[in-house]
Amino acid sequence: MGMWVGRGRKARRCYGFDEIALAPGKITINPDEVDVSFQIDGLKFKVPIIASAMDGVVDVNFAIKMGKLGGIAVLNLEGIQTRYDDPEEVLNKIVKATPQKATELVQALYSKPIKEKLISKRIREIKKAGVIPVVSAIPQRAERFGQIAQEAGCGIFIVQATVTTVKHLSKAYKILDFNKLCKKMKIPVVVGNCVTYSTALELMGTGISALLVGIGPGTACTTRGVLGIGVPQVTATCDCAAARDFYYKKKGKYIPIITDGGMSTGGDICKAFASGADAVMLGNAFARSKESPGKGFHWGMATPHPNLPRGTRIRVGTTGTLEEILFGPAKLDDGTQNLVGALQTSMGNLGAKDIKEMQLVEIIIAPSIRTEGKVFQSAQRVGMCK
Amino acid sequence: MGMWVGRGRKARRCYGFDEIALAPGKITINPDEVDVSFQIDGLKFKVPIIASAMDGVVDVNFAIKMGKLGGIAVLNLEGIQTRYDDPEEVLNKIVKATPQKATELVQALYSKPIKEKLISKRIREIKKAGVIPVVSAIPQRAERFGQIAQEAGCGIFIVQATVTTVKHLSKAYKILDFNKLCKKMKIPVVVGNCVTYSTALELMGTGISALLVGIGPGTACTTRGVLGIGVPQVTATCDCAAARDFYYKKKGKYIPIITDGGMSTGGDICKAFASGADAVMLGNAFARSKESPGKGFHWGMATPHPNLPRGTRIRVGTTGTLEEILFGPAKLDDGTQNLVGALQTSMGNLGAKDIKEMQLVEIIIAPSIRTEGKVFQSAQRVGMCK
Amino acid sequence: MGMWVGRGRKARRCYGFDEIALAPGKITINPDEVDVSFQIDGLKFKVPIIASAMDGVVDVNFAIKMGKLGGIAVLNLEGIQTRYDDPEEVLNKIVKATPQKATELVQALYSKPIKEKLISKRIREIKKAGVIPVVSAIPQRAERFGQIAQEAGCGIFIVQATVTTVKHLSKAYKILDFNKLCKKMKIPVVVGNCVTYSTALELMGTGISALLVGIGPGTACTTRGVLGIGVPQVTATCDCAAARDFYYKKKGKYIPIITDGGMSTGGDICKAFASGADAVMLGNAFARSKESPGKGFHWGMATPHPNLPRGTRIRVGTTGTLEEILFGPAKLDDGTQNLVGALQTSMGNLGAKDIKEMQLVEIIIAPSIRTEGKVFQSAQRVGMCK
Amino acid sequence: MGMWVGRGRKARRCYGFDEIALAPGKITINPDEVDVSFQIDGLKFKVPIIASAMDGVVDVNFAIKMGKLGGIAVLNLEGIQTRYDDPEEVLNKIVKATPQKATELVQALYSKPIKEKLISKRIREIKKAGVIPVVSAIPQRAERFGQIAQEAGCGIFIVQATVTTVKHLSKAYKILDFNKLCKKMKIPVVVGNCVTYSTALELMGTGISALLVGIGPGTACTTRGVLGIGVPQVTATCDCAAARDFYYKKKGKYIPIITDGGMSTGGDICKAFASGADAVMLGNAFARSKESPGKGFHWGMATPHPNLPRGTRIRVGTTGTLEEILFGPAKLDDGTQNLVGALQTSMGNLGAKDIKEMQLVEIIIAPSIRTEGKVFQSAQRVGMCK
Repeated sequence: MGMWVGRGRKARRCYGFDEIALAPGKITINPDEVDVSFQIDGLKFKVPIIASAMDGVVDVNFAIKMGKLGGIAVLNLEGIQTRYDDPEEVLNKIVKATPQKATELVQALYSKPIKEKLISKRIREIKKAGVIPVVSAIPQRAERFGQIAQEAGCGIFIVQATVTTVKHLSKAYKILDFNKLCKKMKIPVVVGNCVTYSTALELMGTGISALLVGIGPGTACTTRGVLGIGVPQVTATCDCAAARDFYYKKKGKYIPIITDGGMSTGGDICKAFASGADAVMLGNAFARSKESPGKGFHWGMATPHPNLPRGTRIRVGTTGTLEEILFGPAKLDDGTQNLVGALQTSMGNLGAKDIKEMQLVEIIIAPSIRTEGKVFQSAQRVGMCK
Repeated sequence: MGMWVGRGRKARRCYGFDEIALAPGKITINPDEVDVSFQIDGLKFKVPIIASAMDGVVDVNFAIKMGKLGGIAVLNLEGIQTRYDDPEEVLNKIVKATPQKATELVQALYSKPIKEKLISKRIREIKKAGVIPVVSAIPQRAERFGQIAQEAGCGIFIVQATVTTVKHLSKAYKILDFNKLCKKMKIPVVVGNCVTYSTALELMGTGISALLVGIGPGTACTTRGVLGIGVPQVTATCDCAAARDFYYKKKGKYIPIITDGGMSTGGDICKAFASGADAVMLGNAFARSKESPGKGFHWGMATPHPNLPRGTRIRVGTTGTLEEILFGPAKLDDGTQNLVGALQTSMGNLGAKDIKEMQLVEIIIAPSIRTEGKVFQSAQRVGMCK
Repeated sequence: MGMWVGRGRKARRCYGFDEIALAPGKITINPDEVDVSFQIDGLKFKVPIIASAMDGVVDVNFAIKMGKLGGIAVLNLEGIQTRYDDPEEVLNKIVKATPQKATELVQALYSKPIKEKLISKRIREIKKAGVIPVVSAIPQRAERFGQIAQEAGCGIFIVQATVTTVKHLSKAYKILDFNKLCKKMKIPVVVGNCVTYSTALELMGTGISALLVGIGPGTACTTRGVLGIGVPQVTATCDCAAARDFYYKKKGKYIPIITDGGMSTGGDICKAFASGADAVMLGNAFARSKESPGKGFHWGMATPHPNLPRGTRIRVGTTGTLEEILFGPAKLDDGTQNLVGALQTSMGNLGAKDIKEMQLVEIIIAPSIRTEGKVFQSAQRVGMCK
Repeated sequence: MGMWVGRGRKARRCYGFDEIALAPGKITINPDEVDVSFQIDGLKFKVPIIASAMDGVVDVNFAIKMGKLGGIAVLNLEGIQTRYDDPEEVLNKIVKATPQKATELVQALYSKPIKEKLISKRIREIKKAGVIPVVSAIPQRAERFGQIAQEAGCGIFIVQATVTTVKHLSKAYKILDFNKLCKKMKIPVVVGNCVTYSTALELMGTGISALLVGIGPGTACTTRGVLGIGVPQVTATCDCAAARDFYYKKKGKYIPIITDGGMSTGGDICKAFASGADAVMLGNAFARSKESPGKGFHWGMATPHPNLPRGTRIRVGTTGTLEEILFGPAKLDDGTQNLVGALQTSMGNLGAKDIKEMQLVEIIIAPSIRTEGKVFQSAQRVGMCK
């Protein structure tokens, strides 16, 4: 399980979505009769697709709409929504900036301090609409923001960084203790991102309720280009799923894993589940909805970095409503609309009656299909850095 | 026979046409003296190439012309031909639609109900011209339409869905029983599509006369992009050929396999036979004939899907007559004309005197040849979803 | 030594020039002091590079110039030079044809019968200039043309077809017997093309003096696209070199192998020698010389095929004199000029003092380098079908 | 550890930057607290990045600026700086030349003889500014120039050729003896380029202070295209690092290796260290700085070759100051600015507290990410031949 890349140096071959495909089995099922729901700590969601915590994707209205449709949209506590009383005005500025000025403007706008009272306000707005508020913060601010969020009625709290490990070293600042955080919080804590079996196991041991999987898998995300870091999502998902299954066997607690990033089409989503995911997290797919505040523009959490921005504001366009993106009818045939319908159709054709069975379908290694020099399935693929 | 794609997860490497080539042996034969004929249940055809059941490719006239040239063209019982008394008028509308409106229009036009009397009418038109009528339906309608078709004088009946298995689960509708269907029908029943050894064996056990092989192999077909499902055709063909050979050894009945989809050039067709095919089914290659009703346009059976369309109407252009495409003289040098001549020349150079010997020539794995960033052999490759 | 491409079907991985590179050893040599000469049956040539028998590349004048520079240019006995008293006029027509009409025109012009007296005439013209005449014919005409060529003073006679085997089957025409041909001819007979160990051994056993290696390796050559046939050149060369070495060990006769096709740059040529070649045959590289009769245009021996043309007339442009292409000074830095200088520099850097040592340098498998979606080393790669 | 490329011929699979990625471990570190410094023979440098000896990149002013920022810039003793009293005027000519005339002009300008007094002059200019002068010469002139350089106050002397071995054969000129050179020089001698374990060991045995690693890894560098020679950098670096570690174990002397060429982004640099490098040498990245004398143009040491030029003058554009390229703030998000920041961030995320630990992080094999047919990470990749 490793190839020599040089004298004394072995490396493992890892796989991404473009390199695999799913093979049918001996049974097929009527797609309308498969079950795609998933759970986090007893909270059940009809749609196993989560909108990621990006300011171009999720605001209060989007979160409410998504919740009502049966999914989750994560509100970013580190961005425009908590730095500005009137986020819409600020978002408009970003949308209207020229491409040349976009990164600089984003950097400037994100340098304004976070107002803690806005954290509570946003959460309450979502809750008031009858939807479970789900928010995210970075590790350095997780203790403080988690407390505020919980008090405001938050339903699920997410702690997210590019790479998250239980052990972090610094003499300059106080280190977050995940064990303490999970004990202190009365609501489910979801943590990420992570790509390896052993770190997944360690994080699961701290008391988290779900794990985000994915480091550097997207193409627009420049984590791999800028830092050299990245594990293709099929392998990352399989490995973390193996950790989940091992942990469940040992401790009796099932901690779902959420594959985050690198998916652009229904096909990619289906492959993520087949690789072992319990749910998936998407940014770009939702940035293209009419309801997303970015109005067809999109930027990642690493874009505002003052010294080493990774990823920029990109234009993805608006292609349909959130409902069309999730449930169709698809007006595009490129796999970016009716994602739930695609998942159900795929599961029906593969004979998987629920997500658990979908996690067991046969994966094959198949060369990516290219047309005129571009990878077909990646034509629309865009991801963002956390 | 598998590689680790992640912890506890093995996947098999599968191969497509672009990844293989054929290697000559120790004998060569005069190409004019090789035999390319094939049989389905005693019906012998001079040309082992079948035009697929697509409305842009096959109408009654096309079916007649193809039959007279020694091949088979399948008439689609689920499309324009059986929904409209005057299909030409409707086809013209599709041809003239703007690219933006095409999918929507196709969806609308295909929502009209099928008229059963048109099934009989079309079949009789073909039969009257002295050609064996070959038609196709989806599993849900196979029992009813099969009966009508048989009574109208149909010669071969095809049941086709994206993925077909003997066992299908649904509480919402009645399941087709292939054993019963085959017993009831007095004409050969051909079934598909299928890509695996075990499902091929199971389907062969139901009494079918031939098997269609291919799921998600094309590039324009978005089955792999939208659903994540697909097995490259070389591996799929080898596997189903192995099932055919095993079944023949055990039961004494030779059930030919027809590789369907993913081929665009003579070279691809030659590789399909070398992988074990008894015949091949093509859509795009024939959509480019002067005789095809789509007048240079082409769309698949999944394009009209109301909620999850896969594949759209595409323009392939008209490049020659059906006769030129089958027997030359080729006016293009890209392998899309004189397909039978190319097969014969290939067999001659490889020393295969008939299809059975062609199924045994040496396959090598060879990197696809690219010119200026595009895969050479795929330049014209287009496929459609069923 | 094989991978499963499907149930019960193994295939061998073969390699082309783009997939390998050469690794330096522990010694380097002054490039000016390496020896690149090679021999066919005692005839010694300073330059191990042969211009292939294409009408756009070699005419009498080109053959003379090439001979005087130390190499070999093969005159095609099946083309314009032996069908027309004034070939220049005919070549001009081809050069001036529009791209749309080129193939058709070539087909028409090549349908004129060969005049046997022109065979003798062309050979005498070359001989008169003090250069060894080298000519080629197809197997069907080899006996007759060989006799005429020999009598006219030909120095080396080449018999060339897409795929050549000792055993050929036909009831329609008389089969060429290579054993008889070689016995009858008093001058060296060179035969091709061939790509496998066993066929190479069989052909060597008939008494030939050199073997041409290469089937379907080029990109412009559509043998692989149209017929599915082709073995990448590194593997083909290694295999035939192994046959040569085995034959030499067993019979004491060293039959040099000439890698033909698929090379476009000095780097490819160096890799061919490292794979075991004694000489290389190029078409495209020389089509770009000022002296070539095609005036920057180029077409293969399969282009005139009346029913299944493979390859068309293509424009390669004129980039320098034959002397510049062989010995520099290079005005281009893409590896298409100063081919002998590149070979010497490569051998010096690899520590190979002659071709025999070059055949032993370390080959590594290295991913091809791409810039902006195109394979760098293939940017100029063009080949033609025989 | 090898695959069959043909009968009796095995080849080793080698890896380049685009094929690997780095996988996080169980610890992360605050990026501001990692140490990236490196040493050559006791001379310590804050920045492990060296600007290569190219006339479009390094002049006296650039060398001074780079030294003050904590890195090394190598002044080329074979180029414009030592052939002309007023190099700026000559550089302007090259910059202003049309693309068509550039190579020819470079060839002409570099044919002027080197003035030895300019060697001393340039070195003194750098030294006077308080920066350690580092210069390079080719092996043929190393003895003479090394002496002059040392006397002028040079701090590190580099001997560089495309392929360097301890043993070189020539009857035409005197061979450089590395043992003698190293003994004679009182300053550290750095030698290259080299890519294999055994040659690295041999060169280390001659008394050198550091080794340059890299032959033919870049894309603009045409060494691989023209000569067929090249070893991808990951494998080359791993192999030479293994030689360094073995030599250190056996002899107790740690001879750092400097990966030279083929890197274009921060990600590539991170991967070079993870492969075992102690420092990296870049050309193109610095050619884009405002301080580089090429004013956005760039050419390699092999470009002026009179008979076989490899690489040409290319335009890379000016994107920022040297300080921005090294330390940010990055205005581009493509990984070409804030290289030190990227390295630190990568090390932090990978849990490596210094270069020695970075050399041990997990490497995985991961398919390169492509967008629209081009390798993402190579978008800006340009290298030059030595």
